[in-house]
Amino acid sequence: MNQINKDYQRLPGSYLFAEVKRRQEAYETAHPDQNVIRLGVGDVTLPLAPAVIEALHKAVDEQADAATFKGYAPDHGYDFLREAIQKNDFAARGADVKVDEIVISDGAKSDSSNIQEIFGPDIKIAVGDPVYPVYIDSNIMAGRGGDYNEETGKWSDLVYLSATAENDFKPALPEEPVDLVYLCYPNNPTGTTLNTADLQKWVDWANENDAILIFDSAYESFITEEDVPHSIFELPGSRTCAIEIRSFSKRAGFTGVRLGATIIPQELEIDGVSLLDLWKRRISTKFNGAPYIVQRAGEASYSEEGKAQIEEMLAYYRRNAILIKEGLEEAGYEVFGGVNAPYVWLKTPAGMDSWDFFDFLLENAQIVGTPGVGFGPSGAGYFRLTAFNTYEKTAEAVERIKALNK
Amino acid sequence: MNQINKDYQRLPGSYLFAEVKRRQEAYETAHPDQNVIRLGVGDVTLPLAPAVIEALHKAVDEQADAATFKGYAPDHGYDFLREAIQKNDFAARGADVKVDEIVISDGAKSDSSNIQEIFGPDIKIAVGDPVYPVYIDSNIMAGRGGDYNEETGKWSDLVYLSATAENDFKPALPEEPVDLVYLCYPNNPTGTTLNTADLQKWVDWANENDAILIFDSAYESFITEEDVPHSIFELPGSRTCAIEIRSFSKRAGFTGVRLGATIIPQELEIDGVSLLDLWKRRISTKFNGAPYIVQRAGEASYSEEGKAQIEEMLAYYRRNAILIKEGLEEAGYEVFGGVNAPYVWLKTPAGMDSWDFFDFLLENAQIVGTPGVGFGPSGAGYFRLTAFNTYEKTAEAVERIKALNK
Repeated sequence: MNQINKDYQRLPGSYLFAEVKRRQEAYETAHPDQNVIRLGVGDVTLPLAPAVIEALHKAVDEQADAATFKGYAPDHGYDFLREAIQKNDFAARGADVKVDEIVISDGAKSDSSNIQEIFGPDIKIAVGDPVYPVYIDSNIMAGRGGDYNEETGKWSDLVYLSATAENDFKPALPEEPVDLVYLCYPNNPTGTTLNTADLQKWVDWANENDAILIFDSAYESFITEEDVPHSIFELPGSRTCAIEIRSFSKRAGFTGVRLGATIIPQELEIDGVSLLDLWKRRISTKFNGAPYIVQRAGEASYSEEGKAQIEEMLAYYRRNAILIKEGLEEAGYEVFGGVNAPYVWLKTPAGMDSWDFFDFLLENAQIVGTPGVGFGPSGAGYFRLTAFNTYEKTAEAVERIKALNK
Repeated sequence: MNQINKDYQRLPGSYLFAEVKRRQEAYETAHPDQNVIRLGVGDVTLPLAPAVIEALHKAVDEQADAATFKGYAPDHGYDFLREAIQKNDFAARGADVKVDEIVISDGAKSDSSNIQEIFGPDIKIAVGDPVYPVYIDSNIMAGRGGDYNEETGKWSDLVYLSATAENDFKPALPEEPVDLVYLCYPNNPTGTTLNTADLQKWVDWANENDAILIFDSAYESFITEEDVPHSIFELPGSRTCAIEIRSFSKRAGFTGVRLGATIIPQELEIDGVSLLDLWKRRISTKFNGAPYIVQRAGEASYSEEGKAQIEEMLAYYRRNAILIKEGLEEAGYEVFGGVNAPYVWLKTPAGMDSWDFFDFLLENAQIVGTPGVGFGPSGAGYFRLTAFNTYEKTAEAVERIKALNK
């Protein structure tokens, strides 16, 4: 008898950002004269770096000539890109990662939702709380969530690693047995991070408890402080317990270009089976590679010229983040993040709930942000603003928020 | 306790084309002076059409300017592309498909391996035999295969729709209950196809038996004969039983560019649940869109200029296919396909097995093809040659095969 995947039906109706968009559009339709500023979705706005544009044009020209035309890419990515990642993101930081351990994809969203497939159906999952919704949703769709409790906002079979101002956004190690832990640092949505000693605790715990850490480092380029790891593979012991997912979206503005990579050390095994082999098998069977022109664009983002241009883009967004952070502090908000991440996390005033504050900010200051509770129950009473708009609009948004207090 | 996805372990060691490549490389290493001609993997060789190149350059320039920069694409694809597909691939052929029913992806391989996810774990799957390995492998990885029988080359829980010369490559309708059937026409690997009346039988059977057809039309651009459907949605009754997967790889030479689409009619439901909704939910959760520049390239492939240029490319490959077909016939082989597809399927001579013929052809004529048995048990004793090499190399390969007989 025909049958759908019933676990898909378990997911609550609409994805967080779709609901944000719906409310924003409803407001804009009702108030066509208002100038709404979007500090909600984490999408970049600066154009691609000139070195990347040049590489794209060059690669397009190669595709126009039979002598240089490229069809199917190698299953796990072109070596020119894997080598550039190995050299710049790992070797340069003293992280021991081999080229063959780097598997190229069309982005961190694909990888972070697909990685659970290589694990068994009954493993126990722990996720940060609040968290990027994809980690949870992909596991719910695979039947690992149990039942959803409307009241607590939690799935019965998941372990939630609560991160709030009370614990300085550093979740405690799980007390119950857990097999797979999703960590994202610098963190989406809180913008906070872990220092080397904090993260080492997780590595040691994972090794002692046969757990595996999925480390999402999508925001590492925003790190400004010393002693904050850019890769989990900078830490001793990580090669026997960690998988890292890397993104070009925030680092090089590739949200519309699509490129990512997942790194699995050769010695990472469960019952003697290599997880790198399983992941490669998945990629070979279900994916046909990121476009050649996109892989060349990724390579160019690591040229000396490309790196310098990207540093300028990052500086631009960082200035926005600090502007938001300091402006909100001045307006009397309790504010977190923004220093090592493009996200500022604030406590809603007067105990207002996240969605009420969303509506309040939209209606009174015409600013769109993201309700913290959309990222998980520990996000309740918090709110996320992003640093990806223009400096001018970001500055205006900050002024509008300050004016609310007057 | 940590656990891998044990169904991944069920897959036989190496993917068909990896084994082909391994044997080819071993031969080339041992015989560096030999000029090997590859008629194996189905990868295109002609450069992209000038209209596509122009659109790519233009889109790259848009990504260089903040005023035209595009970040995340709409979840289900840009409307400019969905509308071009709707108009050219469906409306122009009288097929009733709405823009909202077209979901853009990074290629038919992703879609044909991921589509099974929206179905329940216990549904019964039928696949053509021989067949594109991805349909089977993706279902094995999801636990729907049962046990593999080394002797028969079959999985215990799958239903095989045998297509051989004996039934004119038109498999019989399943006699047992089946929920999901993968059909690929024009067919990979046999190059044969179904006419409208043949396919209508499948549509009627599916509607009568609550079965769903996954129709892979990746090769439809190669159709030259009348009365062969380019889309299953040309047929009455298809909207209540069919999903179609479309590719830009063979039509527009996009194997290294990566673009595809899946079409699910709004009225296609199981127990009142819309499969289009489920698929869109999957795409929204686990994918972040095909690159903007690639979607613009896809759009350009439908411009009047683009279509004319692509017709020339297709004519080039078609000429190769006919050259192979006629050359082999002249050499005394029993040959199929090649008329509506870029694939020629031949019966190995003197009852030689598929891999022996592979080695024979490589060693004696320095030609790489694909052993039919690699596509399934009914492919045993057959062999696939592809039309994607240059005309000159294809002609030389044909001469070499003819010379073998002398």
